[in-house]
Amino acid sequence: MHLVVDGFGGDPQLLADEATVRTMLEEYPLRLGMSIIHPPAVVRYEGPVPEDWGYSGFVMIAESHIAVHTFPARGMVWVDVFSCRPFSPEAVLEDLKARFRLKELRVQELPRGLEYVTVSGTLREGRP
Amino acid sequence: MHLVVDGFGGDPQLLADEATVRTMLEEYPLRLGMSIIHPPAVVRYEGPVPEDWGYSGFVMIAESHIAVHTFPARGMVWVDVFSCRPFSPEAVLEDLKARFRLKELRVQELPRGLEYVTVSGTLREGRP
Repeated sequence: MHLVVDGFGGDPQLLADEATVRTMLEEYPLRLGMSIIHPPAVVRYEGPVPEDWGYSGFVMIAESHIAVHTFPARGMVWVDVFSCRPFSPEAVLEDLKARFRLKELRVQELPRGLEYVTVSGTLREGRP
Repeated sequence: MHLVVDGFGGDPQLLADEATVRTMLEEYPLRLGMSIIHPPAVVRYEGPVPEDWGYSGFVMIAESHIAVHTFPARGMVWVDVFSCRPFSPEAVLEDLKARFRLKELRVQELPRGLEYVTVSGTLREGRP
């Protein structure tokens, strides 16, 4: 499943804290039982629009990834949690809300990575 | 916009070619007018299910990202092209089809990153 979350009304200080972003990327794979294949990378972004500054981070896990982009001046965060393994969206959403003190979440659950192609070419639901 | 593409029936040799994956991550930001904030990272994955092996890659661009996961033994690829800037999904889909010789694409266009919050807290459509 690929969980896409846009969060609004968050705490600017938490969204501006690199450690908070990094800790999230370190903790999520463990909590969700995913194997890290590339360690978390976190980058500070500043662009032509000053209010767009923030931290962007990602961690690659077996066959999928987790990504986060914060916008402290806007109280916003964009998060992707994409995994081939099933996981509870509710637990992730609760955690995100608490971690950045978000007031509103816009959530999309994409039923992705839940089907696969056998080596003979047949499309199947579920995991091998 | 966040373009989510699951491709099927691709060429196993191209999907198994690290350079093809890396080149894609190098070319896309340039073509789509996005600024790279973390250079492409490409990792080979091998797990408990031998047919799941492949390359996973990621590039962070201003406020968003591009990700790719290939499954050569399954002829499959998962791609995310997420940008705050508008871009033509058609051009990306044509390129992906040709790059990996994909027979079938499952495409989802998420209208994400096209709204923003002003510093006073109002949610607006479009970009500042």
